[in-house]
Amino acid sequence: MANVQFGPHAVEGVWPLPQAFTSSPERYPVNSQDFYFVYGRQSAAQQGCSVLDTAFKRYFSLIFPDHNSGSPADRLSWTIYLVPFCVPDNLSISAGKASLNAETVWGAVRGLETFSQLVYQDDFGSYFVNKTEIDDFPRFQFRGILLDTSRHFLPVQAILKTLDAMAYSKFNVFHWHIVDDPSFPYQSSTFPDLSSKGAFHPMTHIYTQSDVRRVISYARLWGIRVLPEFDSPGHTTSWGKGQPGLLTPCYKGGTPSGTFGPVNPALPSTYRFMARLFKEVSSVFPDSYVHLGGDEVDFHCWRSNPDVRVFMQKMGFGGDFTKLEAFYIENIVNITSALNKTSIVWQDVFDYHERVMVEVWRAGCYLCEVRRVVKAGLRVILASPWYLDQPGPTHNWARYYTVWPLAFKGSEEQKKLVIGGEVCMWGEYVDATNLTPRLWPRASAVAERLWSDEKQTSSVDKAFPRLQDFRCKLLRRGIQAEPLYVGHCKHEYQGI
Amino acid sequence: MANVQFGPHAVEGVWPLPQAFTSSPERYPVNSQDFYFVYGRQSAAQQGCSVLDTAFKRYFSLIFPDHNSGSPADRLSWTIYLVPFCVPDNLSISAGKASLNAETVWGAVRGLETFSQLVYQDDFGSYFVNKTEIDDFPRFQFRGILLDTSRHFLPVQAILKTLDAMAYSKFNVFHWHIVDDPSFPYQSSTFPDLSSKGAFHPMTHIYTQSDVRRVISYARLWGIRVLPEFDSPGHTTSWGKGQPGLLTPCYKGGTPSGTFGPVNPALPSTYRFMARLFKEVSSVFPDSYVHLGGDEVDFHCWRSNPDVRVFMQKMGFGGDFTKLEAFYIENIVNITSALNKTSIVWQDVFDYHERVMVEVWRAGCYLCEVRRVVKAGLRVILASPWYLDQPGPTHNWARYYTVWPLAFKGSEEQKKLVIGGEVCMWGEYVDATNLTPRLWPRASAVAERLWSDEKQTSSVDKAFPRLQDFRCKLLRRGIQAEPLYVGHCKHEYQGI
Repeated sequence: MANVQFGPHAVEGVWPLPQAFTSSPERYPVNSQDFYFVYGRQSAAQQGCSVLDTAFKRYFSLIFPDHNSGSPADRLSWTIYLVPFCVPDNLSISAGKASLNAETVWGAVRGLETFSQLVYQDDFGSYFVNKTEIDDFPRFQFRGILLDTSRHFLPVQAILKTLDAMAYSKFNVFHWHIVDDPSFPYQSSTFPDLSSKGAFHPMTHIYTQSDVRRVISYARLWGIRVLPEFDSPGHTTSWGKGQPGLLTPCYKGGTPSGTFGPVNPALPSTYRFMARLFKEVSSVFPDSYVHLGGDEVDFHCWRSNPDVRVFMQKMGFGGDFTKLEAFYIENIVNITSALNKTSIVWQDVFDYHERVMVEVWRAGCYLCEVRRVVKAGLRVILASPWYLDQPGPTHNWARYYTVWPLAFKGSEEQKKLVIGGEVCMWGEYVDATNLTPRLWPRASAVAERLWSDEKQTSSVDKAFPRLQDFRCKLLRRGIQAEPLYVGHCKHEYQGI
Repeated sequence: MANVQFGPHAVEGVWPLPQAFTSSPERYPVNSQDFYFVYGRQSAAQQGCSVLDTAFKRYFSLIFPDHNSGSPADRLSWTIYLVPFCVPDNLSISAGKASLNAETVWGAVRGLETFSQLVYQDDFGSYFVNKTEIDDFPRFQFRGILLDTSRHFLPVQAILKTLDAMAYSKFNVFHWHIVDDPSFPYQSSTFPDLSSKGAFHPMTHIYTQSDVRRVISYARLWGIRVLPEFDSPGHTTSWGKGQPGLLTPCYKGGTPSGTFGPVNPALPSTYRFMARLFKEVSSVFPDSYVHLGGDEVDFHCWRSNPDVRVFMQKMGFGGDFTKLEAFYIENIVNITSALNKTSIVWQDVFDYHERVMVEVWRAGCYLCEVRRVVKAGLRVILASPWYLDQPGPTHNWARYYTVWPLAFKGSEEQKKLVIGGEVCMWGEYVDATNLTPRLWPRASAVAERLWSDEKQTSSVDKAFPRLQDFRCKLLRRGIQAEPLYVGHCKHEYQGI
């Protein structure tokens, strides 16, 4: 279990750090000319498994960046065993061969990433890999990154590039905060006006159905789920442009002011619209989760509107607008439940529902909030300490690294309800021009916290040279990851 | 003199704002098919003037980004007058023609930039320009950007791209902080060991003589001077690797500790080396200025060294190491003066010399320091408020914009000694991956402060939509400038 030698070529060169490993200075040459991936004979997966066939091609290019000959599609000789019962995924490298056992194809994709990071070039350009044994599995099952495509539009290419980089750090959830107040770029087939009137531009700043399918299938091949968020009842200004009557008209001095507030929870038409929209969303996005938002609802407009107040009376809510909000969310959760989706909501609305997963995002004592949620028996995703859209010195990666998600008083059962964490990259100050350097390698620090054993990865000083090395690997793969501190990489970023 | 209509298509769409202008809603179609630049018949410059011939080609492409036909080299019909006496440079656009009068070719290049920003496309892709009169000149003659190629190596391409963007904002000095403690990438023909032993990598992380010439000639065509900095006696760790005996051996407990401090000022060999190095530098870099650094000299090592202390006694400096530092700088200034160069130094060493220009960089009351320098009759460059390497929210552009370089008590004569300002982009956390979005558009805010009339550009609120518009122009020109806030550009950055 002990690691053997320090340095980027040893197993410590793998980021995030595997759970259990031994490595040795004994090294073997690896030659692209006679390197093959093969499925193990007894493997449940065989050629034709699109995820692995694609992963083989991708990783061949990643392992041999200098290799520019023909199709590596035919080069299959690395043994991939898929074992149909619960063992830790295992990677074993010894003289002339290596084998990878994985319970699922997704585990195999992660193992290929690990293997690709173990291969290195010497000063003469020859490739080597050291004798290595690795047993690995993720600490948390939910390791997400949120991108916000409403405050700025992100071209599909920028999203795909981010998915590549996510896979390199073993993230597995792309939380697509696709719409919000400023724009509605999702082109709905049921309600095309939402984007034709609510996007920044109806033709150039939208995601067509085909764009969305492309993102989902691209992500799937990397073992990344796409979790769509259609945030309501707040954060919906752009929805109102293409769907008149959806938002609450705000009043001032007894008359409509001409401005609009959150979605109108008092109208049956609202729920009919939402049912149709989420029906479409459920079929477009195959993931079993859907994020309903629910954050930062401002009650001023609801309070100003006489029809809403009448509805409150009728429902017996008195003057308590949190009850109205709860009523609204309850209805939306009913809609998504009927579509067999599990709902995730921001912490603002967790009090009211038992069928949801809760994402904790507010600053302050976020572990207090995590504890409150798990005590209520709900599952929780932690985002608060990982708001990476906030610009800051790169060396604040250590701040993101030294987060201990389970450092609260609670039972084993309760801690199991913490299913993971998420990096949030909100879009106020971020678009395709600065997304990548702002995300990487700082998000990789979070990735190790979510994947690796906490005891083995508690030291910032030990992590620093490993993360520097990993950042150079990202550059080598064309990811514009910013530097941690003074220094250089053998292959600097050239893509300017 | 008053501006006529607001909006990105009017003259306010020019960034930095011209000194005096009128514009009218009257607009004229501009068609790439019959658009030509021509030299005015009475112009002192004529075809064969490489700066303007190149500028015509460059600006043809910038004005018509959609035009992808053959060589625009033959398309010369825009009148450029070069008037050989001191009038404000003038740009006049009326029906079917425009004329540009400029005292120098450099003024003409700036005028072409202004003109290029005045041309716009309507929703159908047709180009237009409004009736316009502009008289323009820069407020400050020195408008610089410092890049640091020692803490991280910047590929030549990244430097050239930065020069492009500098020209778009009318910067005219590239301050090349080429060497420092971490690495010595300048390949000296006289002392090749400096880079072969002091660079991050002797082959891939250096600037050859040919690279340097390329940067200088590229910059020249944009009207940008290249000001080299060879900072000493501190910040020289990397020099010591290729030039044994240059740095001061530090002592601990009466014996050398094995570490080295600043350049050794007590040895005649030091000055012989510096004379040869600066002789080379003076001929490689044609600019009449050279930056000698002189900042942050740590006296501990000098104090520990018995030979240095003996030298201090001999020279009558007592225990005052600032006198030793002054002696050192005096000698270097003598060397560069003999080479007919004007020296610039960081404020740390201004007290001691009268033949230098001073760059003020320390935080705190920087205008107090500016005042101190000009009272001593020296010229000054202001950098303190413009350390853009510090990451921060993009919207802190306003902090860089609302700097008033002349807001100190002083005579007209003294204020004239403030010759300009400089954006510093130090390299601890910056390399080619994040250089561009960190520089732009925040450096453009500084550009307007240094170019434009202060009274006309004192409002952040008025500047905001203009800077947003200019940032979209930068994107359109392939500059990865980050967003100021929520919103979109017609042409988003795609180069991922």
